[in-house]
Amino acid sequence: MGIVLGTNQYGKAEVRLVHVDRSTPRHVITDVNVTSQLFGDFSETHLTGSNAAVIATDTQKNTVYALARTGGITTIEEFALRMARNFVDKYDQVTGARQEIEQYGWGRIETSDSGAHDHAFVRAGTETRTVVVTKRGPEETVISGLTDLVVLKSTGSEFWGFPEVEYTSLVETTDRILATAVSSRWRYTSSNVDWDKSFTSVRQILLDRFAGTHSYSLQQTLYAMGQGVLEAHPEIAEIRFSMPNKHHFLVDLSPWGLENPNEVWYAADRPYGLIEAAVTRDDLPADEAAWAGIAGFC
Amino acid sequence: MGIVLGTNQYGKAEVRLVHVDRSTPRHVITDVNVTSQLFGDFSETHLTGSNAAVIATDTQKNTVYALARTGGITTIEEFALRMARNFVDKYDQVTGARQEIEQYGWGRIETSDSGAHDHAFVRAGTETRTVVVTKRGPEETVISGLTDLVVLKSTGSEFWGFPEVEYTSLVETTDRILATAVSSRWRYTSSNVDWDKSFTSVRQILLDRFAGTHSYSLQQTLYAMGQGVLEAHPEIAEIRFSMPNKHHFLVDLSPWGLENPNEVWYAADRPYGLIEAAVTRDDLPADEAAWAGIAGFC
Amino acid sequence: MGIVLGTNQYGKAEVRLVHVDRSTPRHVITDVNVTSQLFGDFSETHLTGSNAAVIATDTQKNTVYALARTGGITTIEEFALRMARNFVDKYDQVTGARQEIEQYGWGRIETSDSGAHDHAFVRAGTETRTVVVTKRGPEETVISGLTDLVVLKSTGSEFWGFPEVEYTSLVETTDRILATAVSSRWRYTSSNVDWDKSFTSVRQILLDRFAGTHSYSLQQTLYAMGQGVLEAHPEIAEIRFSMPNKHHFLVDLSPWGLENPNEVWYAADRPYGLIEAAVTRDDLPADEAAWAGIAGFC
Amino acid sequence: MGIVLGTNQYGKAEVRLVHVDRSTPRHVITDVNVTSQLFGDFSETHLTGSNAAVIATDTQKNTVYALARTGGITTIEEFALRMARNFVDKYDQVTGARQEIEQYGWGRIETSDSGAHDHAFVRAGTETRTVVVTKRGPEETVISGLTDLVVLKSTGSEFWGFPEVEYTSLVETTDRILATAVSSRWRYTSSNVDWDKSFTSVRQILLDRFAGTHSYSLQQTLYAMGQGVLEAHPEIAEIRFSMPNKHHFLVDLSPWGLENPNEVWYAADRPYGLIEAAVTRDDLPADEAAWAGIAGFC
Repeated sequence: MGIVLGTNQYGKAEVRLVHVDRSTPRHVITDVNVTSQLFGDFSETHLTGSNAAVIATDTQKNTVYALARTGGITTIEEFALRMARNFVDKYDQVTGARQEIEQYGWGRIETSDSGAHDHAFVRAGTETRTVVVTKRGPEETVISGLTDLVVLKSTGSEFWGFPEVEYTSLVETTDRILATAVSSRWRYTSSNVDWDKSFTSVRQILLDRFAGTHSYSLQQTLYAMGQGVLEAHPEIAEIRFSMPNKHHFLVDLSPWGLENPNEVWYAADRPYGLIEAAVTRDDLPADEAAWAGIAGFC
Repeated sequence: MGIVLGTNQYGKAEVRLVHVDRSTPRHVITDVNVTSQLFGDFSETHLTGSNAAVIATDTQKNTVYALARTGGITTIEEFALRMARNFVDKYDQVTGARQEIEQYGWGRIETSDSGAHDHAFVRAGTETRTVVVTKRGPEETVISGLTDLVVLKSTGSEFWGFPEVEYTSLVETTDRILATAVSSRWRYTSSNVDWDKSFTSVRQILLDRFAGTHSYSLQQTLYAMGQGVLEAHPEIAEIRFSMPNKHHFLVDLSPWGLENPNEVWYAADRPYGLIEAAVTRDDLPADEAAWAGIAGFC
Repeated sequence: MGIVLGTNQYGKAEVRLVHVDRSTPRHVITDVNVTSQLFGDFSETHLTGSNAAVIATDTQKNTVYALARTGGITTIEEFALRMARNFVDKYDQVTGARQEIEQYGWGRIETSDSGAHDHAFVRAGTETRTVVVTKRGPEETVISGLTDLVVLKSTGSEFWGFPEVEYTSLVETTDRILATAVSSRWRYTSSNVDWDKSFTSVRQILLDRFAGTHSYSLQQTLYAMGQGVLEAHPEIAEIRFSMPNKHHFLVDLSPWGLENPNEVWYAADRPYGLIEAAVTRDDLPADEAAWAGIAGFC
Repeated sequence: MGIVLGTNQYGKAEVRLVHVDRSTPRHVITDVNVTSQLFGDFSETHLTGSNAAVIATDTQKNTVYALARTGGITTIEEFALRMARNFVDKYDQVTGARQEIEQYGWGRIETSDSGAHDHAFVRAGTETRTVVVTKRGPEETVISGLTDLVVLKSTGSEFWGFPEVEYTSLVETTDRILATAVSSRWRYTSSNVDWDKSFTSVRQILLDRFAGTHSYSLQQTLYAMGQGVLEAHPEIAEIRFSMPNKHHFLVDLSPWGLENPNEVWYAADRPYGLIEAAVTRDDLPADEAAWAGIAGFC
């Protein structure tokens, strides 16, 4: 019975980069967090400590900055692909790469006297745009996404009809608060897409469907969101969600003779419901390897 | 030499409350985190364990929810004042109260087909609106504020002219990124103010001054922000700031023959500069007790 | 081209439970965080909103508490297995379950006068013991682990011999600080193991190998740790690691005429190296499905 | 009515430093987080942007590392005093300094074959040792402390006898879990103390009193802890506490016919009780300025 090295990858995580496009006085900033990982023939460093094949993680970090300088960053998808291709094409021992990027949103400061400012910005929202590019030899998979899109409906959500089984005590409701922090990732069928246009449309569909679906379960809302995206986006093979059910409990004020007609709620931290699902197409192959190591997307 | 009980206060912290105003189909939500603390004649519970005077922290929590139901929440300032008055006026042993509230921002979801939604919302920004009300007998102090207003200027910031002393190695610059997360709190001269109007104006002035000030130091920007607020708001006695200098370091790409004309930056985590200051009026009395226990506002 | 529901699971996350064994005056506490998820025939709630098959997440939470009461918690592995079997055996629509538990360590308070206390405890360390049990029909997989075991060697670590390629600027070193936060998970070949004995031994081997390996790369240290575990534990099929290289940079004090013979270091936050690998056996089948949704274990 | 600069301070926050004492093969590591702040005559940089008086925060950072090199770090108290004296004594415009340090605990790795290792370490506990030194001209105040010392008693805690007032619904109990995360800071009467000896003793007294006090309220436990410290430590003028009451709620299993004799508890996150108090001496002057800007110590 032999002990052997299994799957492995290594790199530099969370390289924080702010790119300022100064080509006009109206600056454009791109604020990202890049994690570069490589895989390939790296058994020697594990088995003997010889680093003769190792592209140092420090070098990967330098490459992030250098490629940002030489080619700019148009979209995180394009930049992650460029990173992956750089490593896989350039080094024999690198048979694959996984490039993960998070992007933080900024808007221009709206000033009182002259509107949107040329070079002063304010962070916009808790939401993060994400991409994971996996390249294995010539094969490239792009999974875009967003996290922490926090949404809430103050009505239009019900939950009833579940079976009363052992240890069930939950009471049915026809009017509750539905709140979640949407984390969603979607896999493209190609690496040649208008990334910004696709992202903007997907995000809007997610919001439209969350707002527009009269909900009988968070699962139903989730599926409606995914269905909407796949219907409108043939370039997307599948979309996955991890959505906490952020419970809001109606406070019982009856001990003090007070009604509470769905007005005063306690927003709980833990535990929370957790709903995870993929919405996919029945005529496309799966690509489970592309999802490896991504937390919370079953 | 006697050992005695010194200053003390107690209460319930971080009562999470979401209030839904359903008076029209266009719901309004208020999402807050309330910390209620009382002080007064509570030596017995410390010295003997007798709780005969103790308004239970659980009761303070219930009061948050009950008062939200009976009077709604128009502004966090008004609600904190109402909380404080409730406790101080009602119980002899309660000589004072400190009510702290954080409010999280939400906007309406903009749907594709029908615009801003009636009852579907999305979290807006990382920013938090705050208030600390301190009431000692009849005296009330209101300190409003905001935290985590993250802003950045991609140019229009210099730093030079500092003395070269022992251990100085910093190089002067006439063009750097200036970034900070504004935490600011301002003390009112009265507890009878149009709170929302005042808050909205202060926030806009902070943004205007941050954007509009050509900066030679973060201290200078800070003072300009505070000065702007006091000039426009006679109802504000003083304003304090705690502002990290979130360093962005220009990446040196010269080893690879690349220029970097202020385009590619490394956003550092720690250490960071930390600038704290008050801007105040020379003809009004100080009120240091109102600031006790508030972190990072010297 | 049809849009269909893909893989999905749902449940209650982060059920915080403290169990006190009071069978003798020397209490024993078990402090855990349980996430229960089910999979099976749940398409209806996604497609139509009918919850007729849904074991409510609230019921899953109640089950955590009820099973802790009826059977106690001997080990988190045993408890997770009991949870999974309860759901899969009891409900036709539940074809599988994933039960994830984190356990927080506590020690007894050592008092001055009478040593280890019977019922007073103090939190021990940042480290968390973990388990993920996946049950699909009769098949059960147990993956135990630990996270945030933070370790550091102040010498006995080198890094050199890496190729000088494009964008390489790192300087070779024969003496550096090596620091990491070990996250490791290992998959058992069976669900009938002396869990505590196995865990304790694995943890000790990880520490022994980290301390005892003269390191030429973090990869080498990682592999030595995994090899040690597999050599001593035939009941373990494979072990995986996700280990940040928490960089400590020697501070250059030469501008002020000061030597720094590896004494004064800057502990950096980001970026950090990230090394992930599996150490496995060449004569056992893989079980990739058991690792789905676990972050950072490629 | 004039607008003027009020109190202000500035510096470098969270300078992460690991010092390795390599004077023998048995290395000793000191892992700290230093925040250096200065005050004095810094109005110019606020008012005009002239930095002629500004000791750059970068220089303060360099000073942390240089002083660690030239004098080592015996205790954080001694190091903070040395930092403060360096700045105040050296620069005319610096009339005062505030030096805050957090220290993270490490223990030696216990190896199977040779016991405690010479140069391999493991992080010990969630607890942090702290100091805040404030120097104003010749006057020095040392406030030592600790944070996040998480403790729990599984019995020996009661809470009853509180008045039933408006909005009270809490039920009395004679046996509950008492859990808290002790944050405590104590002010010395001098800056010439055996710091390690004093710290070690204070910490032990806190644990002894927490464990040994049959508790009728967290306030009572807190006071007993403070009293114990002051009785044993004449060099300490006062001690303050901020202690959350980390609620553990007994789970009601009666709907399923199960008793729950204080065995199965739900550990809640928020809200939590919050108890803050000072224990002091009646014959020593107060020093409120030393506590300014320290959160949560009323």
